[in-house]
Amino acid sequence: MNYFEESLKLHEKNTGKIEVVSKIKVETRDDLSLAYTPGVAEPCRKIHENEENVYKYTSKGNLVAVVTDGTAVLGLGDIGPKAGLPVMEGKAILFKEFANVDAFPICVDTKNIDDIVKTVKLIAPVFGGINIEDIGAPRCFEIEERLKKELDIPVFHDDQHGTAIVVLAGVINALKVVNKKIEDIKVVINGAGAAGTAIAKLLLSSGVKNLIACDKVGILYRGIENVDDAKKELAMVTNPENIQGTLADALVGADVFIGVSAPGIISQDMVRSMNKDSIFFAMANPTPEIMPDEAKAAGARVVGTGRSDFPNQVNNVLAFPGIFRGALDCRAKEINEEMKIAAAYAIANSIKEEELNENNVIPSALDKKVASNVAEEIIKAARKTGTARV
Amino acid sequence: MNYFEESLKLHEKNTGKIEVVSKIKVETRDDLSLAYTPGVAEPCRKIHENEENVYKYTSKGNLVAVVTDGTAVLGLGDIGPKAGLPVMEGKAILFKEFANVDAFPICVDTKNIDDIVKTVKLIAPVFGGINIEDIGAPRCFEIEERLKKELDIPVFHDDQHGTAIVVLAGVINALKVVNKKIEDIKVVINGAGAAGTAIAKLLLSSGVKNLIACDKVGILYRGIENVDDAKKELAMVTNPENIQGTLADALVGADVFIGVSAPGIISQDMVRSMNKDSIFFAMANPTPEIMPDEAKAAGARVVGTGRSDFPNQVNNVLAFPGIFRGALDCRAKEINEEMKIAAAYAIANSIKEEELNENNVIPSALDKKVASNVAEEIIKAARKTGTARV
Repeated sequence: MNYFEESLKLHEKNTGKIEVVSKIKVETRDDLSLAYTPGVAEPCRKIHENEENVYKYTSKGNLVAVVTDGTAVLGLGDIGPKAGLPVMEGKAILFKEFANVDAFPICVDTKNIDDIVKTVKLIAPVFGGINIEDIGAPRCFEIEERLKKELDIPVFHDDQHGTAIVVLAGVINALKVVNKKIEDIKVVINGAGAAGTAIAKLLLSSGVKNLIACDKVGILYRGIENVDDAKKELAMVTNPENIQGTLADALVGADVFIGVSAPGIISQDMVRSMNKDSIFFAMANPTPEIMPDEAKAAGARVVGTGRSDFPNQVNNVLAFPGIFRGALDCRAKEINEEMKIAAAYAIANSIKEEELNENNVIPSALDKKVASNVAEEIIKAARKTGTARV
Repeated sequence: MNYFEESLKLHEKNTGKIEVVSKIKVETRDDLSLAYTPGVAEPCRKIHENEENVYKYTSKGNLVAVVTDGTAVLGLGDIGPKAGLPVMEGKAILFKEFANVDAFPICVDTKNIDDIVKTVKLIAPVFGGINIEDIGAPRCFEIEERLKKELDIPVFHDDQHGTAIVVLAGVINALKVVNKKIEDIKVVINGAGAAGTAIAKLLLSSGVKNLIACDKVGILYRGIENVDDAKKELAMVTNPENIQGTLADALVGADVFIGVSAPGIISQDMVRSMNKDSIFFAMANPTPEIMPDEAKAAGARVVGTGRSDFPNQVNNVLAFPGIFRGALDCRAKEINEEMKIAAAYAIANSIKEEELNENNVIPSALDKKVASNVAEEIIKAARKTGTARV
C-alpha cells in the first residue's frame, strides 16, 4: 500500500478525522429543556457554588487538549499550526479509540513561549489534561515546566515522556531476554532533543547508572560549550566518567544503544565494539540508525525501531492513551516520575513471560489491553505518591 | 417535569454532553499507518505547501469554537468560565444535532478584552468559525468587532445576532398577520444590552424607520449622559424625533414592542396606549415583560416569548445552526448584514402562508428543516455580497 497516497485520499474523503458529537439525544421539547435552557441553568449553578462540580456535570474530566505550535511535526519539522493539524487530529482519535479519552486539537498560531503558556492556561477550564505535541526542543522543556507549575491538571509532553516510557518498557523486557540488570548496563543515547533527553532522565530514574548522551557534536560532557542549555544540563546528570569523543567512542563496551537521531549513522563496526548481547532501539524515521538485520549480523541481540514492519516497534500509542485514562480517572494533579515508571512496567508486563523473546519485547501497538493495564498502574502510582484526587 | 432536577441528573449520568469521536476506523496496522504515521505526513505536507488545503484534509472547515468568558451566562450573570461550560456544551450539541456542525467549547479564564481576543486569534487555526456566547455587554461588542476585523473566518455573537435574526423573522411574519408594512411601523425595544442593540440595528437594516430604544434609565436619546458609549451610539441611530421620557411614553402609538429586559414591567395600560393590532415579543426569562394572556386581553394581536410553553417562541436554535452551516459550506469570510436578513426571511418563510396565524409566526424550535432553509439562503446571500470563497 502507498501510505502517503492512500492517507491523502482518506483525509480528503472524510474532510479530516474528528467530529464532536452529543452523548444525549435532542429530539423532543423536553430534551431541549434539559440539555439547554431552562434546565442547564442548574448544573451551571452547582458549579458556580463549588468549582469541583465541573467534574461531575461537564465533559471536562474526560477532555484532553492536544497542544502544538507546529514547530516539530513528525519528521517534517517546523511546518506551522495548520499543517500540523492532521497529526493532532490523528492523536485525538487514537486517544478515543485506545482509551475512550476525548481529545481536541489546539494548534497555537505563535512560537512565543509566553503566549503559548498563557493561551493554554486561559483555555484550561474546559480540559482535564494537557498533552503537548510536536513542539520543538528546547522550547518544549520550558513550556512543559511552566504549565506543570501553573496548572492543576496533568500536563504531559508525549514526544518526550511517551517515547521515554515505551523505550523503558522495551529496555526492561530486553534486559530479561539477555539476562542483564538495569543497574549494571552502559547505555548510549544518540540525539539529545526532546525524546532523547526524556529517555535519558527516565532511564536514570529507573536505575541506570552509566549513561552517555551524544548529539551531533559527539558526547555531551560537563564543560561542553557549543550546545544549548538543555544539553549542558543533561551533561550534568549523565556521563559519570565525563569522557569526551565521538558516538563511536561512546559505544565501546556499551550494552544498550538508543537512537532518536538520523538514518544509517551506526556502522556494523560500531555494533561489534559493544558488549555481547547488545540491545538496540534505533528509532530514526523512516530509516533507522542501523537496519535490524545489519545490527543482528554484527552481534546485536534485541533490535527495536519506530517502524511497524519490524519487530519491537516503539510506538507512543502504547503509552499516552492509558496514561491519560488513568490520570483522568483518579483526577491526578500531575503525571510524576513514579507514574511514568509504573506505566513502563505495565507496558512491559503486558507481554507474558512465556511469550517474551528477542523479537517480542514491546507489545503490538494494536493491543488495546495495554492501555487499560497502563491506566490501572498509573492510578496505583498516583495514589501512592499522593497526587490522585479521587 | 422538574427541569432543574432532571437536568442535573442527566448531566451527572453522562458526565457532560459532548464527546470527540473518530470519523474513520482504527483497527488494523494499515488503519494506524493511514490515520497517523507514516501516512499522515502527506496531508501535512500538502497543507504546508498551500494553507488552503487545510480545508480539504482536516476538520477545520466544519469546526466552530463556542467562546465565552462566563460573564453573562443565561439569566445567571457572571458565573465564570467553568460554571458556563454546561451551556457551551449544550450549544455544541445543538450545532451538531441541528446542522451537523462540530462545535467545541472554549471557556476563557479571563475578563480582559485583549486577552480574550488574543487567545481566540491564537487558537483560530483549528476552527472554521467563531461563535461568541454569553459575554456581557458592552465588552462583547468590542470583542466581536476586533475578532471580525482580525480573523478571516466568520465571527458571530449569537446572543446579539441570533436573537435579532429570530426576532426579525417573527416581526416579518407578524406584520403579515396584522397586515402592516415594516417601513410604516413604530417599534419600541426595551433593554439595550447585547441582544437589544443587535435587534435595533437589524430592524433598521431591514427597513424599520421609527425605532425607539429604552433602557433602565428610560428612552435613549442623543445627548443622554448616564449610560455607556454603546448606548450613546445606539441613540445616534434610533429615536428619529429624539424624544425623552419613560418606556410608557415611548409605547404610546407604537406597533411593536420587543422586550429583552425584566419580568412584568409592561402593564395592560401600556398595551392599551399602543396602536391597534400590536405585536409583542416579550423575552424576559423565565417570566416575560407581560404574560401573553394579559397582553392579548389588553389588545395585543401577536405575542411571542422566550418560552417553549407559549406560542411563538423566540429560540436562537432556529438561527445559529443554519447560519454556520451555510457560512462554513461556502467558506464565507464573515456573516454580514445581508446574510443575517436572508436568514431571518428563511426562518419566516419556513412557515407556509396557509399555516401562518397569530399563534404561529415563528417556526417550532424542533423543526430541523429550518436550519437547512437558513443555510441555503445564507449561501446565496454570501455569494451575492462577495464574501463566499467557494
